[in-house]
Amino acid sequence: MSEIFHKIAIVGVGLIGGSLALALRQQGVASTLVGIENSAKSAQWALDNGMVDEIVEQVPDDATLVALCVPSDLVSAWVIKLAKHQAAVFDVGSVKGPIVSAVASQIDLPENFVPCHPISGSEKSGPEAARSELFADCMVVLTPTENTSAQALEKVLNCWHYLGAQTSQLTPEDHDSALAITSHLPHLLAFAFMQQVEEKHIPLTGGGFRDFTRIAGANPELWWRIFQLNKDEVLTALDTFTADLQGLAQSIRAVDSESGIAQISDAANKRKTSEVE
Amino acid sequence: MSEIFHKIAIVGVGLIGGSLALALRQQGVASTLVGIENSAKSAQWALDNGMVDEIVEQVPDDATLVALCVPSDLVSAWVIKLAKHQAAVFDVGSVKGPIVSAVASQIDLPENFVPCHPISGSEKSGPEAARSELFADCMVVLTPTENTSAQALEKVLNCWHYLGAQTSQLTPEDHDSALAITSHLPHLLAFAFMQQVEEKHIPLTGGGFRDFTRIAGANPELWWRIFQLNKDEVLTALDTFTADLQGLAQSIRAVDSESGIAQISDAANKRKTSEVE
Repeated sequence: MSEIFHKIAIVGVGLIGGSLALALRQQGVASTLVGIENSAKSAQWALDNGMVDEIVEQVPDDATLVALCVPSDLVSAWVIKLAKHQAAVFDVGSVKGPIVSAVASQIDLPENFVPCHPISGSEKSGPEAARSELFADCMVVLTPTENTSAQALEKVLNCWHYLGAQTSQLTPEDHDSALAITSHLPHLLAFAFMQQVEEKHIPLTGGGFRDFTRIAGANPELWWRIFQLNKDEVLTALDTFTADLQGLAQSIRAVDSESGIAQISDAANKRKTSEVE
Repeated sequence: MSEIFHKIAIVGVGLIGGSLALALRQQGVASTLVGIENSAKSAQWALDNGMVDEIVEQVPDDATLVALCVPSDLVSAWVIKLAKHQAAVFDVGSVKGPIVSAVASQIDLPENFVPCHPISGSEKSGPEAARSELFADCMVVLTPTENTSAQALEKVLNCWHYLGAQTSQLTPEDHDSALAITSHLPHLLAFAFMQQVEEKHIPLTGGGFRDFTRIAGANPELWWRIFQLNKDEVLTALDTFTADLQGLAQSIRAVDSESGIAQISDAANKRKTSEVE
């Protein structure tokens, strides 16, 4: 390790912030961990479970790293507030372009800001669901801006690597269009699918249903925000999906086995060779 | 146990037939297990791994139970062939109405035929993927016909209960319309979804993607058959899904938070209270 952080501040001690705190603690990455948390219940949980040493009102002046684990639409205000702080500042939002734009519309993009998205999570929320291993082997996409300093970038890369995560760097636009496909659209489809499921169906479900619908149990307000923030990319991915789905439905309707099996085989081959297990 | 079967014949020793053989063996349900299997490779695997005592050409006269673990479109020919056999005969097909109709179009429905569907499986196939615990706690739907004898029904119920499965009885029509929603439509959506996924997206996936797409790795020919056999019900479920999806997309497009969050919350509540974990 090239550096152990002196003091890390975690803003928002929910599922992600809490997991980050547990992981940083477990890996001995920070001498001191402080939390900022509006919810008295979450704050108490974080203290009682040793996630943070202290709950504070403001990011301390001597913090060297700040993790913004608040909902995406609250990130830009924190980035702006911390623009002159010595600490490197990163967020964990699922959509990157709108966050960077929201900051850039108010101030020059700060040197200390490193937008991040750890592609990990859970359909659960709150610090009670936090797990120290949430980021082990997880891919974290960083979308540094043209103003992000090499020093801030290195600090944040080090932090993720200490936790066992892999990192990758993309532009915010490439990140948002890829995630619309790999994460946002699946959630949209699972939410739409669950609407016709009735209680009488539940005993007639197996492992396929359980896995396919797991993400439909996610936090509705959080996902509504993500759909809104990444609206254009999500609707574009949805258009492509709709065309593919109609093609497959048409093959079924017309008993066009050659075309139908070709489409299904293409999907099955992609899934089997994708090495996501 | 009210009865241990003397000799059970398993027609088709693939994932389901092989798992059934392993489970019957493990629970000591049959004195002798014989297999009928066209694929020389699968037959050898079943023998080498002690799944069956013998591979035979025909169902022996002294068999007391026959499990037809062949693709759905091959079931009716076996049921017709075994109509006068002393054994109770059950299949494991994912679609029930067309199988019953195919038999009824040729002969009076046999007294010894008990249509079954164990709602369990895997995206994998072949006896190599067989697991003795595949049916433990699994729901098996039986759709006895008006001619099914009480004796045959009891034998088959006993067999499933010995393996730790739960059972439920439905009409073939109710089974097929429910399974179109709980199993066939999710597969259709997962197959359609995978088509726009590219190699560059794979590193940007997490647990949500992995679980949502797992069923897209299933056997294409097998699933094409299921879509064809249950075409009307699958297309009906798809129409309902399409309407729900368009409703949600319209809320996103129009930034109608009230309606959008209501739809997502409905889905999330259904998933969270469904106790499928």
